[in-house]
Formats: sequence, structure tokens, C-alpha cells
Amino acid sequence: MALTYPEHEIVFHPQCYLSAGHFAGTDAERAAAFLEFANDPVIDAIWFARGGYGSNRILDAVMPHLGDAARRKTYMGFSDMGFLLGALYARGIGHPVHASMASSIGKNDAGVDTGWALGWLIDRDRRGLDPALADGRPAAAFNLAILTALIGSKYLPDLTDHVLMIEEVDEPLYRIDRMLFNMAHAEQLKGIAGIRLGAVTAIAENDPPFGETVDEMILRWCKEMGVPYLGRCAIGHVSTNHVVPFGVA
Amino acid sequence: MALTYPEHEIVFHPQCYLSAGHFAGTDAERAAAFLEFANDPVIDAIWFARGGYGSNRILDAVMPHLGDAARRKTYMGFSDMGFLLGALYARGIGHPVHASMASSIGKNDAGVDTGWALGWLIDRDRRGLDPALADGRPAAAFNLAILTALIGSKYLPDLTDHVLMIEEVDEPLYRIDRMLFNMAHAEQLKGIAGIRLGAVTAIAENDPPFGETVDEMILRWCKEMGVPYLGRCAIGHVSTNHVVPFGVA
Repeated sequence: MALTYPEHEIVFHPQCYLSAGHFAGTDAERAAAFLEFANDPVIDAIWFARGGYGSNRILDAVMPHLGDAARRKTYMGFSDMGFLLGALYARGIGHPVHASMASSIGKNDAGVDTGWALGWLIDRDRRGLDPALADGRPAAAFNLAILTALIGSKYLPDLTDHVLMIEEVDEPLYRIDRMLFNMAHAEQLKGIAGIRLGAVTAIAENDPPFGETVDEMILRWCKEMGVPYLGRCAIGHVSTNHVVPFGVA
Repeated sequence: MALTYPEHEIVFHPQCYLSAGHFAGTDAERAAAFLEFANDPVIDAIWFARGGYGSNRILDAVMPHLGDAARRKTYMGFSDMGFLLGALYARGIGHPVHASMASSIGKNDAGVDTGWALGWLIDRDRRGLDPALADGRPAAAFNLAILTALIGSKYLPDLTDHVLMIEEVDEPLYRIDRMLFNMAHAEQLKGIAGIRLGAVTAIAENDPPFGETVDEMILRWCKEMGVPYLGRCAIGHVSTNHVVPFGVA
């Protein structure tokens, strides 16, 4: 970072190092930290540190209190952070972007995807964008479990005419199938332009064997949904998780 | 059965013994079997054999084809069968009832709950009803994962002024919390009279420890939902799974 982008600084909020049960701080601490940085005019972007579970728990506390500075920012992350990205996009606040997070860099990951993420964040460098975005249509990307947990709520954005990209990790096929049913029957999603499937990784054992592949499943559910299946995309819990700015890039 | 209810007969459809990957027969076979029995005027009730996963996959195929005979029937089951019970209730077809299934009888279960189920089915015997139904308010009962998978779809019934009873099994607390968020923010459920929590059993390990109990969780989410929490009820994946006829019993 210091060598590549010497004129930019990443500041980690102290809340990142807190711990309270499952979470990095209590809901109140996490909400206060987000609001503090989101509403700070000196900060250009919020790069979420990690996913896991829990950003849904602060939506009611933070969404009504985002001011002008928050509206100008870019918000970047994926997986569980889809709750916040979706809620921000639903209200037209800032520029939500699906991309890898700081915590993605690890022992088995050289950090190519975080390089793409920072490149977009700082220079709007398009090299890390999902190749499927070349069609010029607005898109949004979600972890499937997070998308389905947003369905039915005011926090699911209106994705009419958008390409919806989904990815999943650590689930058995029967649960993926159930989530695809949920997506396919969501009245809120009837107007989307099409669906692309990203990486479905670390699939948990299904006992007995499910009897279908994920490619067969997505085709069947898109048909039941009445929405075109547009093929694969290059996002997910993988070292080549690409950047998807919500809306037209 | 033969001794207790000699004048009644249980017929198992041959489809119950089929196998196709994860399912007891292909979707087409399962849909055809359900329609055959549901539309047969000689049959008084459909007692689903077992849960697991997959009744959602036949909803589009069966719901438009249920005739007069199907409208007079009682439909009884729980867990995954909540997809069908919910869809039937949403369309006002027959009498959906949450209760144990034939497969509930097993090595570690004397079958008290299946006795309650059959007692209601045959004699409208109220001894197996969930004690919470004594308040006289209409109710409906769902496995939480099934309820959340129905949210946003036309198959979720209008539960305005109903007491909603939920139960769960085999999930870690963070997933239960995420499903409760989904329920609490479902616009379709804003008008319910209140929520009761049934058994939450075989809770999977949460790493790190979640930091809240299920009772704390349900209180917090009911508050965020703006719906009264009415206390516990006696349903779930337990040997004392009580009967909950949808609507006024």
C-alpha cells in the first residue's frame, strides 16, 4: 500500500479490534464506528475489514443517520457486508462496491483480489472488474445467503434491469437449492435483467448425494423464475474475486 | 392404528418409497402423487410422511391443479412440509395443520406426538393442541428456515392477526439470528399478533460462542420488529411436538 499508493492512507477504526461474543464489538459499538467514519468528510471510502456475520444487526441503527459526507463515499466489501451494501444501494447512498476486503489477504492468497479492490477504490482502475460487466448493463453482486436474508425487507434494493450476480460458500447443495427457490420466488426480484452465477465453493457434504450440479440447479430455478440465466461470473470466496460496482460502472 | 381407529385406513402412496438423488422420487413423480391423493374424493386427509427438503420444488406444479376434493381435506405435517402448508393456507385450500408425521415414530420416540396428530386428524381431539392455542387467537406454525425461505413469495400466507409460532433444529446461533432478522424485517409479516418460540434443538456449535441465548435473541428481534413476544410454545423437532391447526382451531 505504502509503495503502490503513497499518497493514500488506510485507517483502521479501533472497533475492528474489539470482541463481543460472535462480533467485533457490541452492536452499539459497531454502529457508532460505522457512523463515525461514514459521516467523516475527510474519509473518501469505507473498505470493510471482514465478513462473517452481523452487519444486518446495525442497519436500523445506522441507516437513518447517514449525512452528506456518507452520501459521497464508496463502500466496499462482500459476503456478510452485502447487508450494508444492499441497504445503501436501496437508499441511493454512496457507491456500494462488491470486492474483496482487507482480511482476504492470507497465507494462501497473494492478494491479487485486494489489489483489484484498491485499484478500483483509488484510481477507478477497471482491470479488476468482473469481465461480465463488459456488457455495460447495471449489476449488483451478493452472497446468496445474504441476498435471501434481505428478501422481503426494505433493505433489499430495487434491482430492476440489473444483472444479479450471486456466489456461495460452505453450504450443502440442498440448502443452495432452497435459497435459489427463495430467490426465484421473490416478488421484489421479478424485474431483474438476468442472473449470473459466481463461484460456489467449499460445498458441504449432502447426504444422500443431491443428484444435480449447481449449473443444473441455477438453470432450473432461473426457468421457474422466468429470468434469463446469463452464465457464470468471476466473483466469490476465491482468490480471484472480482470487483462489481453496484449499478453502471 | 388398527386397534385405536379400526374404522380408518392409512394408505401410503407408492411414491413414498421412490428415490431420486436427495428426494423420494423426481419432482414430477412427487407432484403427481400429491395431486392424485389430494384430488381423490375418497381420501379425507393427507398426512405427510416426512420432512427433510424439497416440497418447495413442487409448489408451482401442484398449486394450480387442486380441485374441489382437495379443498375439503386436512393436510398435516411440519418442518419442510411447511412449504406446502403455507402455500395451501395462502390460497385458502383445505385445512393445513402443523403436527408430527408418520416418520416421527422411531427408536427413541414412543409416538405420543403422532398419537396427538392422528387424534386431531380423525376425531378433532384437542388434547394434542399446543397449550398456547387456549387464548383462542388464530395461529400458524413454521420451522424458521422454511418460513424465511417463503418470505417475499406469493406462497407465504397472509398471517395478519395470527400468532406466529416458530421452531428450529440443527442450526448454529448465528444462522438462527440471521433468520430472525429476515423474519423481523419481512414487510409481509408486519401485521401479525405476536410471536411464540417453540423448541430450538440440536443447536450446532457456534465458533466463537455467540454471546446470547435464543431467548435473548427472540426478544431483541421482536422488539426491532415491533411485534409482541408472547413466550414459548410446545412445538418443534421434539417428542412432544404439539398440534397447531392453521387459523382458528
